[in-house]
Amino acid sequence: MPEIPREPFILTPSDPQATFEEKVIGFFSSIHPLDLVPRAGWLLRGVPRPESVAAHSHFLSLLTLLFADRYPDKFDRGKALTLALIHDLPEAFLMDIPMPVSDRHLGDAKKKAEASLAAALFDGLGPRYLECFRELEARETAEARLVAGLDKAQMMLKVVGYEKTRWGNLEEFWLNPANFRDYGLREVSALFDAVCAAAGRKRPPG
Amino acid sequence: MPEIPREPFILTPSDPQATFEEKVIGFFSSIHPLDLVPRAGWLLRGVPRPESVAAHSHFLSLLTLLFADRYPDKFDRGKALTLALIHDLPEAFLMDIPMPVSDRHLGDAKKKAEASLAAALFDGLGPRYLECFRELEARETAEARLVAGLDKAQMMLKVVGYEKTRWGNLEEFWLNPANFRDYGLREVSALFDAVCAAAGRKRPPG
Amino acid sequence: MPEIPREPFILTPSDPQATFEEKVIGFFSSIHPLDLVPRAGWLLRGVPRPESVAAHSHFLSLLTLLFADRYPDKFDRGKALTLALIHDLPEAFLMDIPMPVSDRHLGDAKKKAEASLAAALFDGLGPRYLECFRELEARETAEARLVAGLDKAQMMLKVVGYEKTRWGNLEEFWLNPANFRDYGLREVSALFDAVCAAAGRKRPPG
Amino acid sequence: MPEIPREPFILTPSDPQATFEEKVIGFFSSIHPLDLVPRAGWLLRGVPRPESVAAHSHFLSLLTLLFADRYPDKFDRGKALTLALIHDLPEAFLMDIPMPVSDRHLGDAKKKAEASLAAALFDGLGPRYLECFRELEARETAEARLVAGLDKAQMMLKVVGYEKTRWGNLEEFWLNPANFRDYGLREVSALFDAVCAAAGRKRPPG
Amino acid sequence: MPEIPREPFILTPSDPQATFEEKVIGFFSSIHPLDLVPRAGWLLRGVPRPESVAAHSHFLSLLTLLFADRYPDKFDRGKALTLALIHDLPEAFLMDIPMPVSDRHLGDAKKKAEASLAAALFDGLGPRYLECFRELEARETAEARLVAGLDKAQMMLKVVGYEKTRWGNLEEFWLNPANFRDYGLREVSALFDAVCAAAGRKRPPG
Amino acid sequence: MPEIPREPFILTPSDPQATFEEKVIGFFSSIHPLDLVPRAGWLLRGVPRPESVAAHSHFLSLLTLLFADRYPDKFDRGKALTLALIHDLPEAFLMDIPMPVSDRHLGDAKKKAEASLAAALFDGLGPRYLECFRELEARETAEARLVAGLDKAQMMLKVVGYEKTRWGNLEEFWLNPANFRDYGLREVSALFDAVCAAAGRKRPPG
Repeated sequence: MPEIPREPFILTPSDPQATFEEKVIGFFSSIHPLDLVPRAGWLLRGVPRPESVAAHSHFLSLLTLLFADRYPDKFDRGKALTLALIHDLPEAFLMDIPMPVSDRHLGDAKKKAEASLAAALFDGLGPRYLECFRELEARETAEARLVAGLDKAQMMLKVVGYEKTRWGNLEEFWLNPANFRDYGLREVSALFDAVCAAAGRKRPPG
Repeated sequence: MPEIPREPFILTPSDPQATFEEKVIGFFSSIHPLDLVPRAGWLLRGVPRPESVAAHSHFLSLLTLLFADRYPDKFDRGKALTLALIHDLPEAFLMDIPMPVSDRHLGDAKKKAEASLAAALFDGLGPRYLECFRELEARETAEARLVAGLDKAQMMLKVVGYEKTRWGNLEEFWLNPANFRDYGLREVSALFDAVCAAAGRKRPPG
Repeated sequence: MPEIPREPFILTPSDPQATFEEKVIGFFSSIHPLDLVPRAGWLLRGVPRPESVAAHSHFLSLLTLLFADRYPDKFDRGKALTLALIHDLPEAFLMDIPMPVSDRHLGDAKKKAEASLAAALFDGLGPRYLECFRELEARETAEARLVAGLDKAQMMLKVVGYEKTRWGNLEEFWLNPANFRDYGLREVSALFDAVCAAAGRKRPPG
Repeated sequence: MPEIPREPFILTPSDPQATFEEKVIGFFSSIHPLDLVPRAGWLLRGVPRPESVAAHSHFLSLLTLLFADRYPDKFDRGKALTLALIHDLPEAFLMDIPMPVSDRHLGDAKKKAEASLAAALFDGLGPRYLECFRELEARETAEARLVAGLDKAQMMLKVVGYEKTRWGNLEEFWLNPANFRDYGLREVSALFDAVCAAAGRKRPPG
Repeated sequence: MPEIPREPFILTPSDPQATFEEKVIGFFSSIHPLDLVPRAGWLLRGVPRPESVAAHSHFLSLLTLLFADRYPDKFDRGKALTLALIHDLPEAFLMDIPMPVSDRHLGDAKKKAEASLAAALFDGLGPRYLECFRELEARETAEARLVAGLDKAQMMLKVVGYEKTRWGNLEEFWLNPANFRDYGLREVSALFDAVCAAAGRKRPPG
Repeated sequence: MPEIPREPFILTPSDPQATFEEKVIGFFSSIHPLDLVPRAGWLLRGVPRPESVAAHSHFLSLLTLLFADRYPDKFDRGKALTLALIHDLPEAFLMDIPMPVSDRHLGDAKKKAEASLAAALFDGLGPRYLECFRELEARETAEARLVAGLDKAQMMLKVVGYEKTRWGNLEEFWLNPANFRDYGLREVSALFDAVCAAAGRKRPPG
């Protein structure tokens, strides 16, 4: 059985008898520090006050909302918002491990750790959320691809904002095609094009 | 027509010809600093690193998600999440004016300012969002009451987390019935009861 | 009767029997967090560690001191320093609401709120301070105009300092004539001219 | 030609031809970082976000204002405010060296350094300010003793505020008679008594 | 031509022709952000300004110095100091992944990642450092056991310091025997005993 | 006898009966805040999150390690590392007084204060450390000159890192020959040359 590590913010034991409200309290107790976990990519490149993982998730969810409302026939709004809201919750336990290093050096181990942590976090709150993590991982549904693409787009929109105020050295973000992955969605691709146009940059060929 | 003040983060003029993507960029440019705006109630009471308005919105939206999924017949999940995600966006322009002072001294003026700012912010992105602000204000629908009640509950869950780590002096939060308003929803009321039980506190009589 | 909102830092009730010393303690208890309230204009434009309202008030008072000493026949030093020291104290309750937004959207409501809060803050410490707030508001006396003009000048001196260390994007400050208002005082106007000369900028036509 | 001092904290010989406004610009350029210099006594004892030297100076000046207005026959308000506003300006160059260490180990060398730095800082702005530093040092006039005593009182008022929010371990402040020195002024002594009464502490015998 | 690695946290294949000085520059370019990486255990438990990984390494190295000098016949000082100085350098790439989570969920994958990152970081600077990582991992030599034990002791000394200033909730540190592992060294064990005595705590049975 | 000022972090009296472990605890209690003391040179020039004195000491020690290993016949590694690890410890009491101001205005007084504080800090831990301070001061041995030169080099390597992320205005560092003092060591001189080459700068003539 997945188990959450004994952490300072777990109020209630993972008790099968626990009520819904007790589980909710345990859940928020666990993710309490998420507004203190800095996005590592910003920290490493000199953004002096990097957004937190919680703030990133809020912005990504807003972006998802705008897109789901714009293309109601293509994306299920409730599904897409769920994916966006929960996609980074395991970082309350793991911190934000920088992606290039993680992809190259941790690979599947990190994904498995995230899945275990998510299982423990959502234990007793219904199987739906774990399925969402699997769906995000598989990137097959329209919503999973939307959130994966907008996750990159949120990052590039933040780059635009940080560059306006000269926070950090983010030049390399514009050179890496992985930051502009649209996961086959032309709706997301159009946003990347518009971001590049607004910033006077060329979108790197994928 | 409502107009957004000329702010450093507006990339594009509020141009009726602007594409959806350009409007999205302008929108995020405007709310870019929201992860730097501290929640004033925490700041004033000595929480050393107060959550930002963006992080608060993320946590409130997660809470809304859990409740909407738990009571699918009672609350429209998409509607409720929309309300939660956008409810504090005008604070990117106004900062977080502490509620007791604002209620007593600014009253309707603040509400009107928020409505004008929201109108400018969502201009061209569809009338739906402005209607959401009105719905939140009126607190008549189930979703508006859910989000209003969970807004308080998120605050009290954060109090629990901060008190565990001795951040600030939050004693008075437990004494103020306004912090436990359930807006007539027994689902929210049950959460307040559970929070008080977990913290070993008595819920103040409303 | 004006009343200060129940705030965490009020030690003593506004008791007509309170001694002068007790009132002083209550006063400082109320404004205790002022060194944590960031100047919103800096925060919104990416100054990574914006000066606090308290620090701003110190610098403005120093500037006022230098001018009052330089032009002793024109300005009453004690009066001018009083205005400078107290002009932003209500921000300990309201936070620093950005001026363009406040002027356009809150208008008189903010001014009334500030007056009420000042009345409560200085209650029992003598009517002189409330009169100072009215004098500042009216901008008719030489001292009120001096402090109003130097309030802008302090801001532009801080822009010069921040630009030297590349903090934030403050370009627009140089374009807005409102940031160079001298309130009819040639002494203040000469400072604006010198600041523009030192920074190699043109002063925008008023 | 007006020139801003090349280095904010290296005072370069100033130009006797410089205008008043140019000197003012140089002056503020030099003290620009004062809102970033933390009060060392707080930092060393675990106050997580210690007030800056600039914020301390603002609060001390406000306290001086209240006392000068309360006892107009005893203290010259303009003189007292000048002393309060400038007393810590050399810390923009030296940082805030903790007093017990400085008194024991640096002694006169620190006082001489402060005098030299003040002389350079106020060079060309009139001899009055240097005389103020000497007056502060000598502690013979009523105003110098008032500001010296209120400097301690401001510290103890801040202790009260920090203890309410559990910031740091400030217990030892209540035990050290040097923190309650009234410099022979019963007006200041009454404030210390009131502070101790409000905090439920005994004033340590001097 | 000497080149600073393009991205501080992407280790690029280094140039076999590079001089020693060029390699040193690349090395420090890579670990530059280490003073910004917070120790996750503190962050998660509410220490408001957690020590950085770099500061932790400094304190651990000092502790190692004192022990190596005290027991010169038992520990090779140069060897022990090398281990202490470099033991956490891979965290400049991975961030500080909390140990309980990492041990349970990442296990060997994290250790392999650290070894790969260390290999890249020290590439061209001599094989000695990689051997040190292996030695640390194996915990067979006296020096490896000393540094592993003092790594825990440094943490508990920091707990003592943080508890004196009420930073965070660190109660659980005193309950976990893993925080008092002496790796079979009675010299380290005596320090744990003394820390517990000074703090008035019982050392948890291993 | 040297005495450390009564400071909040001294756990144990300087008791001649104290055990080694008790002295170690007192030592770390005293330097506990070193990870919160900002390097003043960075703070004054607008580095938004300046490295702490502790982090600086870690980087300097690593640099010393690389050089001592590279030139084993010339430098005693254990000696050199000791000097690097302890050279700034008195700043836990004095804060980081900026060097140009200190050299010009405090001179020998600061050096004497550091010696006294070091004597108190290391009291009972053996005479070796005080001799190290004297050796550092005299700059006669190869190790003292190595650490003195690398202290400058660490600063310039940090300038390179900060400039890559646009932190502060550090231009003047490249113009001051004192920042490139090699103390007669060609090994250190070669590093300065490489740093200047990598940054595209000319080394200022000494």
